[in-house]
Amino acid sequence: MSEPWTPIERELAEQMRGNDIISVRQFRPQELRTLLSIIERFEGDQAGLLRGKVLAALFFEPSTRTRLSFESAMARLGGGVIGFANAGISSAAKGETLQDTIRIVENYCDLFVIRHPREGSARAAANATSLPVINGGDGSNQHPTQTLLDLYTIKRRLGRTTQLRIGFVGDLKYGRAAHSLVQATAMLGNDLVLIAPTSLRLPKRHIAELDVLNASYEETADLPNAIPTLDVLYVTRIQRERFADPLNYERVKNVYQINRAAVDTGKNELIVMHPLPRVNEIHPDVDASPRAAYFDQAKNGVTVRKALLALLMGAVR
Amino acid sequence: MSEPWTPIERELAEQMRGNDIISVRQFRPQELRTLLSIIERFEGDQAGLLRGKVLAALFFEPSTRTRLSFESAMARLGGGVIGFANAGISSAAKGETLQDTIRIVENYCDLFVIRHPREGSARAAANATSLPVINGGDGSNQHPTQTLLDLYTIKRRLGRTTQLRIGFVGDLKYGRAAHSLVQATAMLGNDLVLIAPTSLRLPKRHIAELDVLNASYEETADLPNAIPTLDVLYVTRIQRERFADPLNYERVKNVYQINRAAVDTGKNELIVMHPLPRVNEIHPDVDASPRAAYFDQAKNGVTVRKALLALLMGAVR
Amino acid sequence: MSEPWTPIERELAEQMRGNDIISVRQFRPQELRTLLSIIERFEGDQAGLLRGKVLAALFFEPSTRTRLSFESAMARLGGGVIGFANAGISSAAKGETLQDTIRIVENYCDLFVIRHPREGSARAAANATSLPVINGGDGSNQHPTQTLLDLYTIKRRLGRTTQLRIGFVGDLKYGRAAHSLVQATAMLGNDLVLIAPTSLRLPKRHIAELDVLNASYEETADLPNAIPTLDVLYVTRIQRERFADPLNYERVKNVYQINRAAVDTGKNELIVMHPLPRVNEIHPDVDASPRAAYFDQAKNGVTVRKALLALLMGAVR
Repeated sequence: MSEPWTPIERELAEQMRGNDIISVRQFRPQELRTLLSIIERFEGDQAGLLRGKVLAALFFEPSTRTRLSFESAMARLGGGVIGFANAGISSAAKGETLQDTIRIVENYCDLFVIRHPREGSARAAANATSLPVINGGDGSNQHPTQTLLDLYTIKRRLGRTTQLRIGFVGDLKYGRAAHSLVQATAMLGNDLVLIAPTSLRLPKRHIAELDVLNASYEETADLPNAIPTLDVLYVTRIQRERFADPLNYERVKNVYQINRAAVDTGKNELIVMHPLPRVNEIHPDVDASPRAAYFDQAKNGVTVRKALLALLMGAVR
Repeated sequence: MSEPWTPIERELAEQMRGNDIISVRQFRPQELRTLLSIIERFEGDQAGLLRGKVLAALFFEPSTRTRLSFESAMARLGGGVIGFANAGISSAAKGETLQDTIRIVENYCDLFVIRHPREGSARAAANATSLPVINGGDGSNQHPTQTLLDLYTIKRRLGRTTQLRIGFVGDLKYGRAAHSLVQATAMLGNDLVLIAPTSLRLPKRHIAELDVLNASYEETADLPNAIPTLDVLYVTRIQRERFADPLNYERVKNVYQINRAAVDTGKNELIVMHPLPRVNEIHPDVDASPRAAYFDQAKNGVTVRKALLALLMGAVR
Repeated sequence: MSEPWTPIERELAEQMRGNDIISVRQFRPQELRTLLSIIERFEGDQAGLLRGKVLAALFFEPSTRTRLSFESAMARLGGGVIGFANAGISSAAKGETLQDTIRIVENYCDLFVIRHPREGSARAAANATSLPVINGGDGSNQHPTQTLLDLYTIKRRLGRTTQLRIGFVGDLKYGRAAHSLVQATAMLGNDLVLIAPTSLRLPKRHIAELDVLNASYEETADLPNAIPTLDVLYVTRIQRERFADPLNYERVKNVYQINRAAVDTGKNELIVMHPLPRVNEIHPDVDASPRAAYFDQAKNGVTVRKALLALLMGAVR
């Protein structure tokens, strides 16, 4: 995309420079739409944009996908990465506070991405430093770059992120990725279909938020009847350990496994998404379907992270 | 080497571009010879040849030597490396299949090197992606870059890789490096001497392959009488855990430990090689001998890997 | 600093080129002063000074701070880093000697930084290779880059490293950082105040060294009366496991915890230092004091390491 930046894009870029990405909720709907159009400008090559810059990737719990995606984004932009891949090799093992770790490492880097098992840790880190901090997942709370790559994938595949009918299926009770995308897609004006067994329905506080937004949504346990109505089917992992009774797990697991036959009952435009890793929620026979968008999500994740790194560093254009 | 590439070198380079390195068996003898002469062109500086490119180094089991050698090769060529150094920090821990890991990470990189404990995993990985894959060792099966650096070391030290008398000593039953180099040197037309105690002789299927190749080889347990006849002595590690009876291990270990006195019974041209790490198969008093070539192997490993990375990426000249 | 190098600086740089940094004791007092003034030249940007160079960072025991600081220094200079963050992923696990590891990895890199739990290991590594080796901490022995960044911090904050009154408080019996800085500051001509409970006093052999240097020092257990006399207060961690009786630990810990009220009894010029990580030796209410210099130490550590990497590689100006 070689068109000049719009004034509204320039304004958002200016606003993000030096700031943090803690939650997708920090953006208003119009800002989210603008951010997605800025991200699209980062398709293709921006070699050298962050040459000499150093990202500290502090992963207090392991995450292949998020960590490698950020490392790749930084490498594509010509910058360097320092950090650790799990807490065992950090000073946390010696009893150091997160605040102290951040205040030390800020002397080694230009910005941070932090993954930490504790809710609120990304905000705490951002409070400890004047450098930009990106939340790479803080416990079961927020993982904004996941939500942004989900939205960006919808935009790339369907041309818009509004006026779509978006189904969420699986573990809507505990799934962080689903919670965050439910909120964001509701804000952007879409019809939501929340498909889950009774024991894994979206928590009341999230339902209450949808009501506050005056969002259009319905709840159902019936996946087969929902699929043909959808533009997007967002699948999440159902974890065995969430069930007291293994028999309940087996029943639910089978009901909500998506296969090619199920997907083929959808519209031509239907796309199937998953935050990955999957275990058996999506049968591999779906992979060859043009509706499968979950590996696209990984690709789009690099573009999203390149854009965010560049925006926070003020390294645009 | 500043001489122009020969047509046969150019043809092989064109053929390798975008392809995989899974096994040294994928090369015919003439191709191996051509590849070794291409590798020689990568002695010296090629800074910047892979600038902006990203190698994903996925090590599902640890390997200092192979991993650091690839990382060094990539750094020398100006490229970046992402990945992990053991499976514990990968998504495999969450039950993800190798195929899914590859299909995700292919969005973050330009080529792969994969080390995995399961035989056939490198081929499986190559089947999952259109990006080039280099096998960095798949269980007890293949480790082609080790074989290529062994061959290249012989070429650098002795000027040729044919018409040599090459002794293999130690654990010929389980040693992956030896199996692969036995096959390759037989194909290239050398006389092989297979020196091992009865319990660690080369497996029948490898002997059968030598017979199919109509290769010249002999089997013996007598190391002292073999050494004076050799141009190359390739030593491998004898692992205690291969023996049910510890006394048998102690006896064999002592018989096949190479020391300076033994090496000095060899020809002036004799070179002593070892895939490393050694424990006590080669006494440190051999290190100062001009015949010791095992640290050269480490050096040549970087040259070999630089060449392969550049060839697979089509980044030559 | 754009002033031309002095002849004495050029001479030291020439002398350090290709050499090792094993202990701060390898420098005479005049050399230390010259080195600190060279280091000051590395404030600011030297992007590209080590482009194409590769540092092998071999951490046989974990150290976030030292490892990330070296990685950052190398990234700032445009070079690459290979290595491992703990011994578990090294070949040491297979029984390889340190010497062999070094002789292999020297083929992959241009210089080394080594952290190892065994005293004397850095010297042993340096003996195994002709490449420059920097000691990143060898057990309870030496950690010269820590001492240099401590000295450099004193110089940056107080304008000199001589004729100061420097208090050391905490565990003077086992604290490696304190031992080394006591020696260096004594050599440079300062008054030392050694503040510790009886059970954690500076060992006799270190006291003997101070006597040999004819250094000015006093020993006391009384922290409150010492503080108002000091220019520098160097605090070290008191570890619970050093005490047989937990009650003794609790008593000592409380007596030697530094807080804002205590610091405010000091001179205006007083600076408070700590090698970090701290646990509870310095109360967080000190952090906002202009006297707190411990996070500065982290910042200065990158400058010191950039300078050393460049000096050893002969990459100055």
